[in-house]
Amino acid sequence: MENFVFQNRTKVIFGKDQEQVVGQEAAFFGKKVLLHYGGGSIKKSGLYDTVVESLKEEGVEIVELGGVLPNPRVSLVRDGVNLCKEHQIDSILAVGGGSVIDSAKAIAIGAHYDGDVWDFFDGKAEVTDCLPIGVVLTIPAAGSETSGGSVITNEDGAYKRAVGHDKMRPEFAILNPVLSYTLPSYQTACGVTDMISHILERYFTNEKNVELTDRLCEATLKTIINNAHTVIDEPTNYAARAEIMWAGTIAHNDSLSTGRVGDWGSHDIEHEVSGIYDITHGAGLAIIFPAWMKYVYKHDVNRFVQFANRVWDVEIDLNDLEKTALKGIQKTEQFFSSIGMPVTLSEVDIDDKHFAEMAKKCTEKGPKGNFVPLHEEDVFNIYELAK
Amino acid sequence: MENFVFQNRTKVIFGKDQEQVVGQEAAFFGKKVLLHYGGGSIKKSGLYDTVVESLKEEGVEIVELGGVLPNPRVSLVRDGVNLCKEHQIDSILAVGGGSVIDSAKAIAIGAHYDGDVWDFFDGKAEVTDCLPIGVVLTIPAAGSETSGGSVITNEDGAYKRAVGHDKMRPEFAILNPVLSYTLPSYQTACGVTDMISHILERYFTNEKNVELTDRLCEATLKTIINNAHTVIDEPTNYAARAEIMWAGTIAHNDSLSTGRVGDWGSHDIEHEVSGIYDITHGAGLAIIFPAWMKYVYKHDVNRFVQFANRVWDVEIDLNDLEKTALKGIQKTEQFFSSIGMPVTLSEVDIDDKHFAEMAKKCTEKGPKGNFVPLHEEDVFNIYELAK
Repeated sequence: MENFVFQNRTKVIFGKDQEQVVGQEAAFFGKKVLLHYGGGSIKKSGLYDTVVESLKEEGVEIVELGGVLPNPRVSLVRDGVNLCKEHQIDSILAVGGGSVIDSAKAIAIGAHYDGDVWDFFDGKAEVTDCLPIGVVLTIPAAGSETSGGSVITNEDGAYKRAVGHDKMRPEFAILNPVLSYTLPSYQTACGVTDMISHILERYFTNEKNVELTDRLCEATLKTIINNAHTVIDEPTNYAARAEIMWAGTIAHNDSLSTGRVGDWGSHDIEHEVSGIYDITHGAGLAIIFPAWMKYVYKHDVNRFVQFANRVWDVEIDLNDLEKTALKGIQKTEQFFSSIGMPVTLSEVDIDDKHFAEMAKKCTEKGPKGNFVPLHEEDVFNIYELAK
Repeated sequence: MENFVFQNRTKVIFGKDQEQVVGQEAAFFGKKVLLHYGGGSIKKSGLYDTVVESLKEEGVEIVELGGVLPNPRVSLVRDGVNLCKEHQIDSILAVGGGSVIDSAKAIAIGAHYDGDVWDFFDGKAEVTDCLPIGVVLTIPAAGSETSGGSVITNEDGAYKRAVGHDKMRPEFAILNPVLSYTLPSYQTACGVTDMISHILERYFTNEKNVELTDRLCEATLKTIINNAHTVIDEPTNYAARAEIMWAGTIAHNDSLSTGRVGDWGSHDIEHEVSGIYDITHGAGLAIIFPAWMKYVYKHDVNRFVQFANRVWDVEIDLNDLEKTALKGIQKTEQFFSSIGMPVTLSEVDIDDKHFAEMAKKCTEKGPKGNFVPLHEEDVFNIYELAK
């Protein structure tokens, strides 16, 4: 087990009707809040009204910025930063899913920075200050509600880049599984895929003595897999929605990465795809992850055997460990397919036209991934495997 | 899943040599620290010198209070409170195991309170203020390093009582598995039993839809069980010591109790035993828990079947679920025995002389436990079963 520091201060308020306390929680961080959200869904569902009413009850002044798109854009982030500066905003309240939260985090680090906010994503500036962030979560997927990370797309060049810092963790996150009832099944499945991928990125490590985190990862994966079809078939099943929502947070709150270096290559490889083609991140991961697995499993067959056995209940064939490993990968791919995810690029009408360009861009700052560091050629091969 | 609020802000600094940063961490909370510890073991091991040197390097002034005993006494807590008031202490640094940390927490809540600190444990006062607490952990067991709880014994009447509050969570906890190398195997086993018990108290719940926390509990239990004999047979096995140390924290940081009401009856039943007889808490739990299981399992045989199957790999006998449940209990008892724990009161020379008195005292404020609420007669019967 490697030395580590773990701290996650986010206050999680989980359960039915909990969005009603948002005013109280937000007021704790000041009286002027930037209310940040996506399209009109929170207005249609009534959540917007509940949140505004709760904020007003506590005397919180609201400045609004809606319009966050999936794969959130730096242009809107810049608008948010300007609003914060203009109105001397105290804190940001993100009402939505990972895109809204990531956008809020980017605004929060830009609010007290003199340069362009993209500097943080381009490695030109370091996070030293961050406005307090609150969250009302509507899409269990990205785990951004308690993480310190933000992924933003720069339309100028279609770059998708990540920044992470402990200061960027939200101060509070309200998780009401009922708010996810109205998610279309495709989006639910994308969320499930995203959270599974977050765990897999941590699971595939070269560190050998990490039994507890391995088992915690496996426990969370099994729970997600076990509840995925239920939330798709019965969108208003509270018990299953609750398991999935809480699992999405656990998957990315860093408790599953203690004592080890994760991989994160697949996320970077996928970011190039959704950076250009604007497909949903989760769908991109369902395509890239099985391809990545097929490309790298020989690096540590035994770890893939453990994965196959403990997560997918594949019996270990001691005469052919490789076969067992491959069965685990096949089960993963079949599972993604079974919940309605694409598992090849052709299923989402992406051909090989940009493979070379994406592979080059992905690795322009060095090889990607830690389990097996992948160079330009490797990334290209993975796109080929995912065709 | 029940609604819940989860927040644990403690910064965990885990790994080799990490006690060397204690000065930096402590200095963050002020320049006057009460250094609290137990007997002479930290002086013999050199840890005391390392800590003092690190504090002095950061210009932190030290007031000392050693002498914490297992089952920490309110009399020493009172001395600590007086020292805090006299020297205007900024924070408390606990160097030791659960007893030292619990004692530090009690001092921390008493430091700004005008009445007697026992008032908090007697239900006469509520926690509103708490000095910041830092920890250098030497005994993985109680999980007090990130919990908000403290258990203190009042010699005047042999009462052992608990207080819990989020404000009482330590600000930082330094966990270096190497510091546990010198623990005698009996104390190591007591620690293992204590952390297993912390999980079992959470595991046995009447809430049905708690799959994720169930699986996380099972994952942590399996890891502890899998590494227990190694840490006893090979005290300097870093990998195993690290699994056990981190598992002890996870077992009690409240991530394993989300969405459910735990039981905690066995802890209360045991506290009466160690309150009178001054046996180690872990040893007391190894005796009480199997007896409690035998007494209550019929209340929810299926939960005990799940426990037997998922934790102990007992095959489910669908023709005789009760038999499967009992096998899980038997495996638990055998495991405690195998690591050198007593599993009957007679093994630690406790006869039935005080059973009636202990049962009465345990339930004087109402029935104990939530899985099955236990009245005076039930507690008496459990002592009888544990004879």
